[in-house]
Amino acid sequence: MISKKKAKFIISLQKKKVRDEERLFIIEGDKLVKEFLAAKIPVKTLIARPEFLSSLPDDLTRFVNEIEDVSYEELKQISTLKTPHNALAIIPVPDRNLDTNDVLKGLCVALDFVQDPGNLGTIIRAAAWFGIKNIVCSEDCVDVYNPKVIQASMGALLNVSVFYNDLKKLFTSAAKNKIPIFGTMLEGDSIYNHKLDNKGIILLGNESKGISDELIPFITEKIMIPKFSKAKQGIDSLNVGMAASVVFYEFLRKSGRLPE
Amino acid sequence: MISKKKAKFIISLQKKKVRDEERLFIIEGDKLVKEFLAAKIPVKTLIARPEFLSSLPDDLTRFVNEIEDVSYEELKQISTLKTPHNALAIIPVPDRNLDTNDVLKGLCVALDFVQDPGNLGTIIRAAAWFGIKNIVCSEDCVDVYNPKVIQASMGALLNVSVFYNDLKKLFTSAAKNKIPIFGTMLEGDSIYNHKLDNKGIILLGNESKGISDELIPFITEKIMIPKFSKAKQGIDSLNVGMAASVVFYEFLRKSGRLPE
Repeated sequence: MISKKKAKFIISLQKKKVRDEERLFIIEGDKLVKEFLAAKIPVKTLIARPEFLSSLPDDLTRFVNEIEDVSYEELKQISTLKTPHNALAIIPVPDRNLDTNDVLKGLCVALDFVQDPGNLGTIIRAAAWFGIKNIVCSEDCVDVYNPKVIQASMGALLNVSVFYNDLKKLFTSAAKNKIPIFGTMLEGDSIYNHKLDNKGIILLGNESKGISDELIPFITEKIMIPKFSKAKQGIDSLNVGMAASVVFYEFLRKSGRLPE
Repeated sequence: MISKKKAKFIISLQKKKVRDEERLFIIEGDKLVKEFLAAKIPVKTLIARPEFLSSLPDDLTRFVNEIEDVSYEELKQISTLKTPHNALAIIPVPDRNLDTNDVLKGLCVALDFVQDPGNLGTIIRAAAWFGIKNIVCSEDCVDVYNPKVIQASMGALLNVSVFYNDLKKLFTSAAKNKIPIFGTMLEGDSIYNHKLDNKGIILLGNESKGISDELIPFITEKIMIPKFSKAKQGIDSLNVGMAASVVFYEFLRKSGRLPE
């Protein structure tokens, strides 16, 4: 049984403003909640149906501060999903500051004004799959703790750090250290042939506007995914999530690294 | 001004049952509508705000049977979008029968029980980009004329034919003709190293269940996208749309074909 006050509070966390103030976010779904528990992430509150709670091994709830059991109807009230699963958890936003030197050591991703939560979630999932550990978002990107981003990224957020920063600052540091900035854009050079480093920044732009004019001068290498179609209508771009997956794949392939 | 009866009819086309009976579907959004007009696809009804209609060159409306101008409020009533654009069109479902021999001549895609409209749309878009002309869906896949599929595929439907069929029938024909069936699955061989033909079927499975048991025996080559992460939690698969993009890319790259 969950109090009205608490239910209201949980619903309020669907708003970015409240998440920012409270430094809390919500994850939902049995699989995702179990993954966070198994990863030993501190959990403020675990809210779940009794069946879910009784199925959990003891050692999974060791890092949970508070547990509430609820009925399906109660869960439905606080859920962002049309058909909620059996569990939901409130998680503290991790305290992580962008350490530019650290991020620039390997391959990282910069996102310029990516707005669609599904796209950001997809990009996080692709980064995790391909072992890219850091994503730096421009400050106008969609919030990583938006419930739709969480849903689309699945558990990948456990393996990728997402920062918000002024990209110009990051790029200025990169330029000083002669670290390449690969901008994905339609007029770029085909990634088939282009030399891709295993160090540098992969920059992806907004869904409809691409990379902002003010960031273009920082790009040291313009790249694109070759298109195999003569058609004049209907195929002017790939979705940014798909583009990210293909570009990450090709970077890793060319790096000569083998899957772990 | 649009009659109540017509508005009701257009809204009813959001249901698969009605689309199947009427053999009609809806496209929405200025860009998409313009692309369909430019491709000279026969249009049953074009419904748009006067500004949109007056901006159209004459030769774009030559294949339109009927034009209705509407106010923004009227458009909002019949739209599936939260913020509708300026135009919507009713399009006859093309009469296309699956010609197995034709489809099996080149590289084609088979989808087993892909349920999410966004994923089907993404896969169509990726296929179009990489010049793959045919997609055969199992009969339990989401309907290609679902408004969310149309929205996610953008204009790519103009360049890709999507069929619904019993995949076992298609695979039986393929087997007879010794055409390879590449099944994408987690226990497959890495596409880094695997020989990929420029002829054959790329089979992708359901979002959570993968490829059905009954189809597994037809697979002649099991393939997968290498994963670069040791993490135990959070990264057990790529979304099927992302996987499709990467696999299509690698098939085309290995085919030695050059972008057109």
